[in-house]
Amino acid sequence: MSLHPPAIQALLDALGPDLVATGAAIPDRRHADWSGVPGVTPAALLRPRSTEDLSRMLAICNTHGQVVVPQGGLTGLAGGACCAPGDVAVSLERMNRIEEVDAVSGTLTAQAGATLQSVQEAADAAGFLFPLDLGARGTCTIGGNLSTNAGGNRVIRYGTMRDQLLGLEVVLADGSVLSGLHKMVKNNTGYDMRHLLAGAEGTLGIVTRAVLKLQPRPLSVATAWCGLPSYEAVTTLLRRARAELPGGVSAFEVMWPSYLDFMLERVKGLRQPLPERHAMNVLMESSGSDAVHHGAAFDEFLGRMLEEGVIVDAAIARSQSDAGKLWAIRDATAEFPMLLPGMSAFDVSFAIGDIGRAALECESMLRQRWPGGTALVYGHLGDGNLHVIAHVPGTGPDVNAAIEEAVYDLVRRYHGAVSAEHGIGLLKRKVLGHTRSPAELAAMRAIKAALDPKGILNPGKIL
Amino acid sequence: MSLHPPAIQALLDALGPDLVATGAAIPDRRHADWSGVPGVTPAALLRPRSTEDLSRMLAICNTHGQVVVPQGGLTGLAGGACCAPGDVAVSLERMNRIEEVDAVSGTLTAQAGATLQSVQEAADAAGFLFPLDLGARGTCTIGGNLSTNAGGNRVIRYGTMRDQLLGLEVVLADGSVLSGLHKMVKNNTGYDMRHLLAGAEGTLGIVTRAVLKLQPRPLSVATAWCGLPSYEAVTTLLRRARAELPGGVSAFEVMWPSYLDFMLERVKGLRQPLPERHAMNVLMESSGSDAVHHGAAFDEFLGRMLEEGVIVDAAIARSQSDAGKLWAIRDATAEFPMLLPGMSAFDVSFAIGDIGRAALECESMLRQRWPGGTALVYGHLGDGNLHVIAHVPGTGPDVNAAIEEAVYDLVRRYHGAVSAEHGIGLLKRKVLGHTRSPAELAAMRAIKAALDPKGILNPGKIL
Repeated sequence: MSLHPPAIQALLDALGPDLVATGAAIPDRRHADWSGVPGVTPAALLRPRSTEDLSRMLAICNTHGQVVVPQGGLTGLAGGACCAPGDVAVSLERMNRIEEVDAVSGTLTAQAGATLQSVQEAADAAGFLFPLDLGARGTCTIGGNLSTNAGGNRVIRYGTMRDQLLGLEVVLADGSVLSGLHKMVKNNTGYDMRHLLAGAEGTLGIVTRAVLKLQPRPLSVATAWCGLPSYEAVTTLLRRARAELPGGVSAFEVMWPSYLDFMLERVKGLRQPLPERHAMNVLMESSGSDAVHHGAAFDEFLGRMLEEGVIVDAAIARSQSDAGKLWAIRDATAEFPMLLPGMSAFDVSFAIGDIGRAALECESMLRQRWPGGTALVYGHLGDGNLHVIAHVPGTGPDVNAAIEEAVYDLVRRYHGAVSAEHGIGLLKRKVLGHTRSPAELAAMRAIKAALDPKGILNPGKIL
Repeated sequence: MSLHPPAIQALLDALGPDLVATGAAIPDRRHADWSGVPGVTPAALLRPRSTEDLSRMLAICNTHGQVVVPQGGLTGLAGGACCAPGDVAVSLERMNRIEEVDAVSGTLTAQAGATLQSVQEAADAAGFLFPLDLGARGTCTIGGNLSTNAGGNRVIRYGTMRDQLLGLEVVLADGSVLSGLHKMVKNNTGYDMRHLLAGAEGTLGIVTRAVLKLQPRPLSVATAWCGLPSYEAVTTLLRRARAELPGGVSAFEVMWPSYLDFMLERVKGLRQPLPERHAMNVLMESSGSDAVHHGAAFDEFLGRMLEEGVIVDAAIARSQSDAGKLWAIRDATAEFPMLLPGMSAFDVSFAIGDIGRAALECESMLRQRWPGGTALVYGHLGDGNLHVIAHVPGTGPDVNAAIEEAVYDLVRRYHGAVSAEHGIGLLKRKVLGHTRSPAELAAMRAIKAALDPKGILNPGKIL
């Protein structure tokens, strides 16, 4: 009588229709992520209420060789959470509790379905900062953040998601539970499974719970827009700021002149930050723990940089509203999809020492090959993360493909990474070999086969 | 005519006696590390001059199923570099070059045989700090530091060796070379092999080169000895210092009263740091980048802590010599082997919130079970790293074994780590299951089998 394939029927028999949604019971939103990869309705949507539920589910899927696609908040940009026909999707939306904030150890324990924002808010309520932050914070989940090793706005100071991770609970393909939910900073007891699972995009296991590090909340923030004479001056400013600012550097956003020109011309309400046009622009932020001296030290530092010719001019924010106006120029990237429909956008990374040349070369290559188009370059310099935007009006997928090939070729020549923070997923698989060597790919495949011998976990992603 | 086993003969034939030392050509020092595990002369000592040499060596050993034991500076305390009869040892002592300091990217590239001290000195000469530091710095190598994920004196601020690592070149068991020698901060392109290799104690591959992160040199250091009323006050001081000191906390060494009493009584030349005896003692250091305001901010902070009752008394170092006298009390642990011959020493870790109870329980358990003995507890609190010293005069290995069992049982009950920074090696294999679950151990074994199917790389270590 059953209309279900055997794996789905076995899941339903063991766990019931509340945990195993099929057909019309699967909500529409489960069909696609933000990558633009077309959505496919999964054969079933598994919604475990506990690690034990998920363990039983995966054991059954593994027995049947049933493909499982883990889904977090579905805000990924690389297609890592997309299903193919016949796949089963898993959502941890019912496992979204913040289980504990331990103020003495400075840790927060959450289920993987908790949103990033709920973790930030729980940390804040306890007087701490959870520093990972990105635009999708209200929707993306801790499990997704871990599986993609998410980056975002504060990597220069606090690192990526990997760096926030103390302990991890993961269910492997065969349903076995790797319990490593501890709060220890130091733990040299064999292979570090946390760092293997973080960034594996759900191909090695499904994260169910995590212990995360909390940071002290900064007590003061200083912000300035700097005009600089050259890229060399930009790297000098970064090095000096890291060494000499009491709170270090919490943001260091670099914008080439074409970016600033474009934004000031095309986005309403932006104000020119400095009277003159400069060879390079940096939006720099320092957050500190000394509310009394922090602002003065920041001003003194910029004074020294001006005297030494490292910067040519600077606008220091005197209020939060001032800072907001400077950040608006950087945050206007959110307008790109409207301003440049059909554009190609890249998230790549380089050694900091290479970015200056790589960015110039990339911009001039794009302008030369597609003279009618727009080519904009900006990035988080301290992280080595460069964003490139290319747009040629009135062209289609062929030109986009040619632009992609050209940009990724340049990344390969500079030994850069084809994905700085978005991951590989489906969309960047074809260029993974630009960054990783054949021996590395072979080792990854061997590890995948060791932990998921039947290949049921998110196959076709990354590898 | 050959007297050598086939694997050794094949190595000699392919690479010659300069790269493949046998018999009397093997120097004595290659027989043992600092763990106390008795030394065995290896069947051959391989001394590659290049990654290619090592690649050829491992390919030959793999073909013959010949066991290979990688050796760094041989300063390990867990027996991870010890040979069994018939094993071949590999030393990278000829691959000890600092290949590059890139001041713009803030990176240093070194061969794995370079000593930690040579890396520190090269960083210093370029105006940077390489922050990893430990007593064996002149002898231990970067490759060994990476393979054991070494910790040391500055983990609270800069993390362990893993956190200093940007790129890695590794030779796998079959001789294939994993080249990941890049300088990128962000690289989300598949599984992170760096973090799998770091801490694997040479069981998954042999590190040949690494790209390491450099830090700005601190411009000012402030040090104080604090007397506190309780362990709760200690964790409050740590949390407040991290949040409120402009340079954060660069050392936070906690000593229980029995430790201080013992040191002042038994070690000559130490001066009592405060007039009264206190329930807890903390040696706190903050290093900053603001030479002008840093000292004043440190003093103000301690004033606030005194007013609020978090500390009862403090001695602030007014000179480097003052600071040296305070550190002498902590560094006197180097005297333990002389003062307490045959003692048991433990390097374990806990959640910061658990250390207070765990330490008290451990000390009183030891005193109760072995009333005639000495039990001392101290540690790097910010890292969750506790050291325990136990000594019962006139007893032998049986009592040491009973003490070990009792301490590791306590670690297990608190979900702590049986090795905070020394690794597992040979000596802690039997208690690895106290910290890692059967599912974790099974996953580690699967990964080992995937990357080293013949089990030639440092077998019997960790697993």
